[in-house]
Amino acid sequence: MMNFGICPVDPNWLRLAEARQLELTKPPGSLGRLEEIANRCVAIFESLLYSLSRPRIVLFAGDHGVCAEGVSPYPSEVTAQMVLNFLSGGAAINCLSEACGIELQIVDVGVAAPLPASAGLISRRIAAGTRNFCHEPAMTRGEADEALAVGIEMARAAVVDGCHLLGFGEMGIGNTTAAAAITAALTGCSAASAAGRGTGADDACFARKISAIERALELHGEFLSSPGEILARLGGLEIAAMCGFCLGAASCRRPVVMDGLIATAAAALAVRIEPNVKDYLFAAHLSPEPGHQRLVDFLKLRPLLQLDMRLGEGTGAALAMKLMIAASAAFTGMATFGSAGVSGKK
Amino acid sequence: MMNFGICPVDPNWLRLAEARQLELTKPPGSLGRLEEIANRCVAIFESLLYSLSRPRIVLFAGDHGVCAEGVSPYPSEVTAQMVLNFLSGGAAINCLSEACGIELQIVDVGVAAPLPASAGLISRRIAAGTRNFCHEPAMTRGEADEALAVGIEMARAAVVDGCHLLGFGEMGIGNTTAAAAITAALTGCSAASAAGRGTGADDACFARKISAIERALELHGEFLSSPGEILARLGGLEIAAMCGFCLGAASCRRPVVMDGLIATAAAALAVRIEPNVKDYLFAAHLSPEPGHQRLVDFLKLRPLLQLDMRLGEGTGAALAMKLMIAASAAFTGMATFGSAGVSGKK
Repeated sequence: MMNFGICPVDPNWLRLAEARQLELTKPPGSLGRLEEIANRCVAIFESLLYSLSRPRIVLFAGDHGVCAEGVSPYPSEVTAQMVLNFLSGGAAINCLSEACGIELQIVDVGVAAPLPASAGLISRRIAAGTRNFCHEPAMTRGEADEALAVGIEMARAAVVDGCHLLGFGEMGIGNTTAAAAITAALTGCSAASAAGRGTGADDACFARKISAIERALELHGEFLSSPGEILARLGGLEIAAMCGFCLGAASCRRPVVMDGLIATAAAALAVRIEPNVKDYLFAAHLSPEPGHQRLVDFLKLRPLLQLDMRLGEGTGAALAMKLMIAASAAFTGMATFGSAGVSGKK
Repeated sequence: MMNFGICPVDPNWLRLAEARQLELTKPPGSLGRLEEIANRCVAIFESLLYSLSRPRIVLFAGDHGVCAEGVSPYPSEVTAQMVLNFLSGGAAINCLSEACGIELQIVDVGVAAPLPASAGLISRRIAAGTRNFCHEPAMTRGEADEALAVGIEMARAAVVDGCHLLGFGEMGIGNTTAAAAITAALTGCSAASAAGRGTGADDACFARKISAIERALELHGEFLSSPGEILARLGGLEIAAMCGFCLGAASCRRPVVMDGLIATAAAALAVRIEPNVKDYLFAAHLSPEPGHQRLVDFLKLRPLLQLDMRLGEGTGAALAMKLMIAASAAFTGMATFGSAGVSGKK
């Protein structure tokens, strides 16, 4: 595994941030988790005057061979159709990122159907989707590494473009099955307790999903102690890219906001590869997918929002990023008791 | 009590909104509470193409006679000092509302210290704060009605200005004591279970706070079956104004977002005065103040955010309003399965 050069944040900066919080014109601690956000950002940027300028979400799309097992109520074609919807601005993430003032980039890492060239589409197609992990590894290690490198490239490009806040999301029919399999492999929980209804599986579809994950865990079991093997065997091209995105963002010292279940599975693998990534990671929200709770527990992170969202695409990340921008504006923009002439406690 | 002409929303519009949600390019229900927000807004505006243009927060400030009982760690002077801080843009609400693109208005309904005239300050000063409710009613019924009318005036003025989304917050040293007393009067809970640490009361201050509320409930007990009496005897000028603001917003059919404990106490009184107000009310967040949970339970509303915020000023409302704006942008801006050529479920 390569060396990503990711340093933990310096706890002295956390203490400087906490001390500054006490000077701002508010009762100590009264901004709650907004203070926690700002304090972590201070430690990441090593500055009390940081700014979350030019927020960007990168959405990675890829298809999944496991769809052959009937694990999703939607056909695989929807992945490509939704990419076209992203490009024409009609999806939830388009509306939410625009409302929140966040740039959106769409990356094809491995959509099965070829997509027409488009100014808005970043094409990094590694394969026409993954293979069916019930029968063989979803990807070769080479494919997984290539997809990881795409994510690193996208994070570094964002930093070069001046982005100080990064988020990521995904599109890929079948990828809640892959994410649940990764969750089981990482946390040791059963397939049945990692799997959820995804986009709305009925009982029969849900049973097929659990069975597919069980068979995959059985088939690949002996290899699943290494995060690289978990990623290649059970993951997806967009999951590997998101994993790389976390590594790239952390190596450039940028806060990076993960979206829902699938993004969190990717981030958890990044943390298994390089534990210091965690200092840069923010959990946007908690979805009702049971695997998501297990993954945020595994990461010991507390999601910012609980809005019963389970759409993916980066939709939860967009809302949380706006919250982080607002929290940062308060931290860097507020007056102090001294400067505003406000009396402190009696 | 006057007739506010507040109609319940028409459930047929909720059903139309739910039907529209099923056409949008996302799995049914996958935007979770964002869908609930949009559906309620559709019913309020009676339009599938509504817009939350020109959001505005009105912040009402007033002082409290009960501070003589030593219920707050901060001196009463802080109310006026913080109003000056709002006017110069240095408070948390200034930074958060600006980051979220929300207008902010500051209204003096009864700050004890006279404030210098300022272009940014709306002066509707009814009294130099309230009286100490441990010994007498905080306000006369006439004063409470005047303050209520100020809130109605501010809501109606916002609507005339073209605001389609209204929020409210407050500033008033001592007002968590008043809000906790109102909570106990409305819900029947004890003073000890309604009261919290507010801006950071230590044990002695907290004991004085509970005692003050207990003595007030004892003194005014026989009058506390009417919301108008609760408001006048236990409330505050800014609380009465916020109560009027809810009534005014609902009578103009505008969604109205309450902030934390004190704002919610005011909203709960508005709902006791006119139950249909509830259809227009949104609970922004849940603060750690125990009375706040009791009030949202009383209102049967589910707060959108849980960020451990307990600052007031409208800070929680600002964040929730941005969330509502984003939710509405998704509802009105997303493509449908038909228009985007995306396949539905198999």
